[in-house]
Amino acid sequence: MTPFELQSGNKIQTPQKRRHVLDLDDFSEKEILNVLDSADSMRNILDRNIKKIPALRGKIVLTVFLEPSTRTRVSFEQAGKILSADVINISGSGSSVEKGESLLNTAKTLQSMQADLIVIRSPEAGTPYFLARNLQNMQIINAGDGAHAHPSQALLDLMTMRRNLGDLKGKKVVFVGDSLYSRVVRSDILGLKALGASVVLSGPPTMTPYPKIFDSSRELLSGVTLEPDLDIAIESADVIVALRIQKERQHSGVLPSMREYTRRWMVTEKRYQMANPGALLMHPGPLNEGIEIASSLAHSDESLIEEQVTNGVAIRMALLNILLMSNAGEIEE
Amino acid sequence: MTPFELQSGNKIQTPQKRRHVLDLDDFSEKEILNVLDSADSMRNILDRNIKKIPALRGKIVLTVFLEPSTRTRVSFEQAGKILSADVINISGSGSSVEKGESLLNTAKTLQSMQADLIVIRSPEAGTPYFLARNLQNMQIINAGDGAHAHPSQALLDLMTMRRNLGDLKGKKVVFVGDSLYSRVVRSDILGLKALGASVVLSGPPTMTPYPKIFDSSRELLSGVTLEPDLDIAIESADVIVALRIQKERQHSGVLPSMREYTRRWMVTEKRYQMANPGALLMHPGPLNEGIEIASSLAHSDESLIEEQVTNGVAIRMALLNILLMSNAGEIEE
Amino acid sequence: MTPFELQSGNKIQTPQKRRHVLDLDDFSEKEILNVLDSADSMRNILDRNIKKIPALRGKIVLTVFLEPSTRTRVSFEQAGKILSADVINISGSGSSVEKGESLLNTAKTLQSMQADLIVIRSPEAGTPYFLARNLQNMQIINAGDGAHAHPSQALLDLMTMRRNLGDLKGKKVVFVGDSLYSRVVRSDILGLKALGASVVLSGPPTMTPYPKIFDSSRELLSGVTLEPDLDIAIESADVIVALRIQKERQHSGVLPSMREYTRRWMVTEKRYQMANPGALLMHPGPLNEGIEIASSLAHSDESLIEEQVTNGVAIRMALLNILLMSNAGEIEE
Repeated sequence: MTPFELQSGNKIQTPQKRRHVLDLDDFSEKEILNVLDSADSMRNILDRNIKKIPALRGKIVLTVFLEPSTRTRVSFEQAGKILSADVINISGSGSSVEKGESLLNTAKTLQSMQADLIVIRSPEAGTPYFLARNLQNMQIINAGDGAHAHPSQALLDLMTMRRNLGDLKGKKVVFVGDSLYSRVVRSDILGLKALGASVVLSGPPTMTPYPKIFDSSRELLSGVTLEPDLDIAIESADVIVALRIQKERQHSGVLPSMREYTRRWMVTEKRYQMANPGALLMHPGPLNEGIEIASSLAHSDESLIEEQVTNGVAIRMALLNILLMSNAGEIEE
Repeated sequence: MTPFELQSGNKIQTPQKRRHVLDLDDFSEKEILNVLDSADSMRNILDRNIKKIPALRGKIVLTVFLEPSTRTRVSFEQAGKILSADVINISGSGSSVEKGESLLNTAKTLQSMQADLIVIRSPEAGTPYFLARNLQNMQIINAGDGAHAHPSQALLDLMTMRRNLGDLKGKKVVFVGDSLYSRVVRSDILGLKALGASVVLSGPPTMTPYPKIFDSSRELLSGVTLEPDLDIAIESADVIVALRIQKERQHSGVLPSMREYTRRWMVTEKRYQMANPGALLMHPGPLNEGIEIASSLAHSDESLIEEQVTNGVAIRMALLNILLMSNAGEIEE
Repeated sequence: MTPFELQSGNKIQTPQKRRHVLDLDDFSEKEILNVLDSADSMRNILDRNIKKIPALRGKIVLTVFLEPSTRTRVSFEQAGKILSADVINISGSGSSVEKGESLLNTAKTLQSMQADLIVIRSPEAGTPYFLARNLQNMQIINAGDGAHAHPSQALLDLMTMRRNLGDLKGKKVVFVGDSLYSRVVRSDILGLKALGASVVLSGPPTMTPYPKIFDSSRELLSGVTLEPDLDIAIESADVIVALRIQKERQHSGVLPSMREYTRRWMVTEKRYQMANPGALLMHPGPLNEGIEIASSLAHSDESLIEEQVTNGVAIRMALLNILLMSNAGEIEE
């Protein structure tokens, strides 16, 4: 089963009340816009000198990271703490997983402890779905599962685009690089299509979804265009998202030589000129400077890479707040 | 020195005021019942939507886990945070222990930092006693020391039994499996005897305390019956506690083949029928399904495994509150 | 570049408003005394039964420890939590550093998340300076960088001396042992000179700054005396600071045999008698008993080792408060 064939999450939740954030395939345009509105409010709190509101006091959020990650874990931990939730970190090493206890048993135990929500990062596609199907009283946020999905990253990308471009309807977004094995671009596409943007994927043929994949998941990729030649793809783009070369996920032989990659797919100043004036330049990070984006451009005013990170905390605040407040009843001291 | 010969904790504390929880051998029936009453109240807080009370605000609790553990560490961390204590985690790896500093030096340093209480998990029996004897201003909770004791687990077992059976006087509790090297069953026995229950140990002769051990610690095990044949042991039981097969603690040759073990000592539906009607089925977790308990039974209504975990947080809240509140004087902002 | 030649931090900050604590070379006597006064107040809070004030509520402090350390990390974490800051821990292992992301990229990302301050421990001299130069909106506290500096340790040493001796002007402070590769003694010297104390370094010639080092950093070490013979050095001392033999930092051939070391440079009761009556005995810890200080002396009333640890939390509270309060504007719920 490839990441593109994974069962969607929309059968797990009732449409009326959101319990989990597994991917964006069960988010309507309206719900996405609600999240972005909420995140805009959260961003105001984040920009204050005193970053603290009591919204989630008495809620318990667990971060379970089965893959090394600082950026995403700290972003969620900070989001939870700013909202006054109690955040407890569990990493793969030193945990019960080492003792041979299965992830599901561990998660069921955590559920019995009355924790409210698990933020899960896993090297295996599908892990957050597995937990959501098997835990009745635990809410789940997917913080990245293998090459499958990374919905909070997609939402922060949408937030950054909307704050800088306004309405995304009809805008042209170009992803450059490894879109075949990127959980980021896969979730981004779902969100961009919901908001009416058009998507172009550019990159080495070995790293973009080729026709065979198209055939077996037509629904997902309808309206998405492949254009290997970046000089053509970038024309009149409103947003350019350069993707990280993920050496650790590459199968041998997939990645062309670095020299060829940078020659054909690095976003350079010259290529940037071919996009629409004021086009946004984004990257999910961490950036390999001088490979995916020319150094001068990465540090220019057009680059929104740092704003993406800031917005990421705001999006995670919004998601935690929406999921946990919707379940809140009694409020007491 | 076997775990059964370890010096008891009752010389370390004055009887008037509890400073440490090292094992249950220095708890009277009355004190155990007080803890269970307090834990019942804590359970109400834990079941609320907003899980937070300010009881231990301004208290500092350190968890020092020298063995991998997620369940127990998270349970204590959550208990402390719900009570508004500050909780700081220290694990064996990455700590000063790696730098060649002795545990006692580390603990003395932590004491000098004015931390209030250490929750200690250690692979070595006796470690919490050693700390309690050498630290004048630090309170200690034993979260499991080698094969010796695990008092908070025993208290959560007693709490679960009492909430489902009422008074435990005269009740029959059967432990199945490895009771010789189990810190859980050892502490359980102390508590059950204090509350007037009778105890039967069943399991392979290599995994239960044989006469020689009996002789050298008569006081501890008086009133405890050995019955290797589970079909006989289980008759008219009020509680059946299946114990975890701890492969990592087994000496070679001690554990019979898994096939023989499950045939003779797995708790099956048929065997469960021989117990008293409504007998409680418990397990300290993590459960090896289909080895210690038949899968169908483990997921039945009779199984209290998940309730044990929930009660575990309540017990730890009660212990932290009793130890740290009894020392509280001034309250100020 | 030796640690003694590292560029000082005073070009990074404007003199009017302190943003970072990198070393003590840019602290005036007045500023040091202000920190010590503030730490004395913090010490009062730390000695309370309820250790909590809301001073830094809504501030986010990150501890980034690229070297194993329990003492210093817990000291800073506790200091932050007592002041109600949110503290998030990041260790070298399991972090983005493992994924090949550079420290600067990680730090820039953390800055974009709107964290306020990084407490950094690094095995490489200069790391905190590097971060301070490259991060516009993040405040930095150096928690030890290689063999270069450890300013919070130096301040807690000064605090301990001042609380026990009063004004340090004209007092004689003797450091015994490895002063060449000790970040502690290096920062201590800067602080002691600012407060008008005189400094003597005693120890094996291979472990003390020899003339060549003197020549190339005359400014730093003027007023510091070398006296290899401890019996002479200790005469009429007001403070004796024994330094830790750091086996892991020793180059082969530098450390004499342990037997020779203890014979010539261990602080013994007999040697202590040669100092001024009531001379203070200190050690940055962790102590190798019977090597650096005779065991009887280490546990005597003259030893301030445990008080140093307590004062360490107070100093870190004072530093966090000074750095983060000076930037505070709006206060709101």
